[in-house]
Amino acid sequence: MTAFDYDLFVIGGGSGGVRSARLAAALGKKVAIAEEFRYGGTCVIRGCVPKKLYVYASQFAEHFEDALGFGWSVGERRFDWQKLVAAKEQEITRLEGLYRKGLANAGAEILDTRAELVGPNEVRLSATGKTVSAERIVIAVGGHPSPHDALPGHELCITSNEAFDLDQLPKSILIAGGGYIAVEFANIFHGLGVETTLIYRGKEILSRFDQDLRRGLHAAMEEKGIRILCEDIIQSVSAGRDGRRIAATMKHGEIVTDQVMLALGRVPNTRSLGLETAGVKTDERGAIVVDAYSRTTAPGIFALGDVTDRVQLTPVAIHEAMCFIETEYKNNPTSPDHDLIATAVFSQPEIGTVGMAEDEAARRFAELEVYRAEFRPMRATLSGRKEKMIMKLLVNAADRKVVGAHILGHDAGEMAQLLGISLKAGCTKDDFDRTMAVHPTAAEELVTMYQPSYRLRNGERLP
Amino acid sequence: MTAFDYDLFVIGGGSGGVRSARLAAALGKKVAIAEEFRYGGTCVIRGCVPKKLYVYASQFAEHFEDALGFGWSVGERRFDWQKLVAAKEQEITRLEGLYRKGLANAGAEILDTRAELVGPNEVRLSATGKTVSAERIVIAVGGHPSPHDALPGHELCITSNEAFDLDQLPKSILIAGGGYIAVEFANIFHGLGVETTLIYRGKEILSRFDQDLRRGLHAAMEEKGIRILCEDIIQSVSAGRDGRRIAATMKHGEIVTDQVMLALGRVPNTRSLGLETAGVKTDERGAIVVDAYSRTTAPGIFALGDVTDRVQLTPVAIHEAMCFIETEYKNNPTSPDHDLIATAVFSQPEIGTVGMAEDEAARRFAELEVYRAEFRPMRATLSGRKEKMIMKLLVNAADRKVVGAHILGHDAGEMAQLLGISLKAGCTKDDFDRTMAVHPTAAEELVTMYQPSYRLRNGERLP
Repeated sequence: MTAFDYDLFVIGGGSGGVRSARLAAALGKKVAIAEEFRYGGTCVIRGCVPKKLYVYASQFAEHFEDALGFGWSVGERRFDWQKLVAAKEQEITRLEGLYRKGLANAGAEILDTRAELVGPNEVRLSATGKTVSAERIVIAVGGHPSPHDALPGHELCITSNEAFDLDQLPKSILIAGGGYIAVEFANIFHGLGVETTLIYRGKEILSRFDQDLRRGLHAAMEEKGIRILCEDIIQSVSAGRDGRRIAATMKHGEIVTDQVMLALGRVPNTRSLGLETAGVKTDERGAIVVDAYSRTTAPGIFALGDVTDRVQLTPVAIHEAMCFIETEYKNNPTSPDHDLIATAVFSQPEIGTVGMAEDEAARRFAELEVYRAEFRPMRATLSGRKEKMIMKLLVNAADRKVVGAHILGHDAGEMAQLLGISLKAGCTKDDFDRTMAVHPTAAEELVTMYQPSYRLRNGERLP
Repeated sequence: MTAFDYDLFVIGGGSGGVRSARLAAALGKKVAIAEEFRYGGTCVIRGCVPKKLYVYASQFAEHFEDALGFGWSVGERRFDWQKLVAAKEQEITRLEGLYRKGLANAGAEILDTRAELVGPNEVRLSATGKTVSAERIVIAVGGHPSPHDALPGHELCITSNEAFDLDQLPKSILIAGGGYIAVEFANIFHGLGVETTLIYRGKEILSRFDQDLRRGLHAAMEEKGIRILCEDIIQSVSAGRDGRRIAATMKHGEIVTDQVMLALGRVPNTRSLGLETAGVKTDERGAIVVDAYSRTTAPGIFALGDVTDRVQLTPVAIHEAMCFIETEYKNNPTSPDHDLIATAVFSQPEIGTVGMAEDEAARRFAELEVYRAEFRPMRATLSGRKEKMIMKLLVNAADRKVVGAHILGHDAGEMAQLLGISLKAGCTKDDFDRTMAVHPTAAEELVTMYQPSYRLRNGERLP
């Protein structure tokens, strides 16, 4: 029917690309998808999935300790890093297979090759050198950890890409960064018995999250034994004669460590993709510029997921893919909705959050009610573990809407998911108050905070 | 100001009684509260709190097993029942202290005595024989496990009251009942290494819960090694010469076991309370009859919590207490709201549920959409544990409202608490659909079930 080889050609086999290809193929479109590494993308291969598996692995150390308070005694335990890596590998290979199977079942052509744009509707496949044409092209090539070229000795460092597959578990690690990736890996390595230091240039880890959670997590991580150096940076990294790394910091002298991991942001994978040739513009960070419908500056070429640097999250890429399908193939123009996205940080304790942080909400609303609870989770009463859960609700006094919900503690991610529904639906504090508690849970705190802890008027805390 | 000794006299130091007394005292009322056993009531002393602590204790066995799949090897472990009982005892004693402190701080007079009605406004204190008068009386004396007098040998059995404090952990136990208490204890004992059998007269455990959850939990418990005998009952219990118990069942012959636990419902504590003298009516089950404002048939006498047998849950008793305070002391007539109460069963896997079960919703709504997901939780992929999470949303097609949400699996209780907000607020399936997923969580399934698994029209499943 068309003069093109394909109706749709998707570059990139991650969450957004696979969903686009699968849905379009299921609608009867002629679809090809190309991936140069492994299907599943960052999320499945070296992001969310292996990360969460490693989080589980790292939590057992605390389970063993906690058991004592409940009457258990536990013999000697050992951790085998290679076994974990192998188990992870098996699982992500299984998931990769499911992604391929989903594509195949829908009728998409699966190509294991790098693909680059060579014209407005043309893509060159590196594996064969062949050029194919497509009516529409989706670029969903994701991003990669910043190698931080400016750092002398950066080539001696690892990133999250390598961290999952290290030949052996280091005895010590220095992680640079204060974002969620740095924080999650710090907790993983610490839980697996690695002497862990986090170094971050900012005043406090996890910028843009609610201050209470940032401070609470910082304190909890230090309590566990993770060393956190804020307002400091690594100035250079060199290799010692014993093969260890020597990191020269600005304020804390030299740190000798087995590994230095850089978690200093991610960069869109837009190099050598032929974007200029095809007329696809990128911004100063290298991210592809798109409009509200994920359209690039080149007709017929779309981009979604991390490569557009809107919100770098798996579900967002999938959502953008589904919106693309609605708009382009179902005659239902749908713009991705990036408002009120609940997120989790799989630190230990975990963070779950949706909506505005307190300082942002205080700027935004004339009168803000802050409901805040800090308490020891029930399990900790017998385990003796020093940990506090923090829960916060932020309420716009004018209309009683809950505009922010923030949790630090076990299962915070699961809770944030469901609080996300309430906030998205515009629920008020009265809706929370009318809800009966489920006892004994941690989440019941969120429906039993009847009086504000304090109020802010025009950003000032009322006495 | 009044001719009475007290403005308010509260009989019973459980959740509802303590909250009534504390709030009234905080408002400046002259308040006394009497408790014959221990402050904190069933919830703190021999219900929710120790139950959940024992659930935690019993889960470690699975943590130890699960650790293997994540690269850990764990040496020999032993469980010491007496240590758990002692730790539990210390914690509930601490909580009891907090209850007393809250009452004392509010200015309530704390009496350690049984109290009985001797007239419309009069209460006799058993400890001293003294009679005191009060303008208002709240009866919040709770209930107790049915001793099941009709069962020959029932005196050889234990109930949940005794189960927490057994001198030693039995090697085997037979638990009669199919309600949440029976099910929770079966999982606790099994997790602690006890050979556990559940016997229940009904067709399936947990009547009134959603069928998928009932069947799913039944299967999961059997998979773990808990023996479940449905449609059978114990006909008599006798003591063997070795001190063990011999339970004669209707269909499964004799079962020889260390302990027999009866979890066959709970009975209101209304005996010898002087109710007739005071003109307080009870129903055929012995529960105190109350109106929509917790008023008994005797003027000035109120009843709340389990003794009224409305909904036997701690948060409900507390809610009823708060409504009583609003109505009687704040000139704000408030009737307890018993609609859409989210609940949890702390079985293993856990149940969390709010709203109607499928069969009930199918009768109620002309067209019902059922969204159902059954999947292996991520942790189980590496632990190798055979377990499935089940999630269900029931949607009234006419107005798209979510009328039931049911979860079987880890953290189901926490999830039910927060789903409770959405259902109470009348959220629609579209509100769920518009919510971005949090990845990787289990709860994200609840916002990514875009197509109904099936529909029911007038109770019939559509093809």
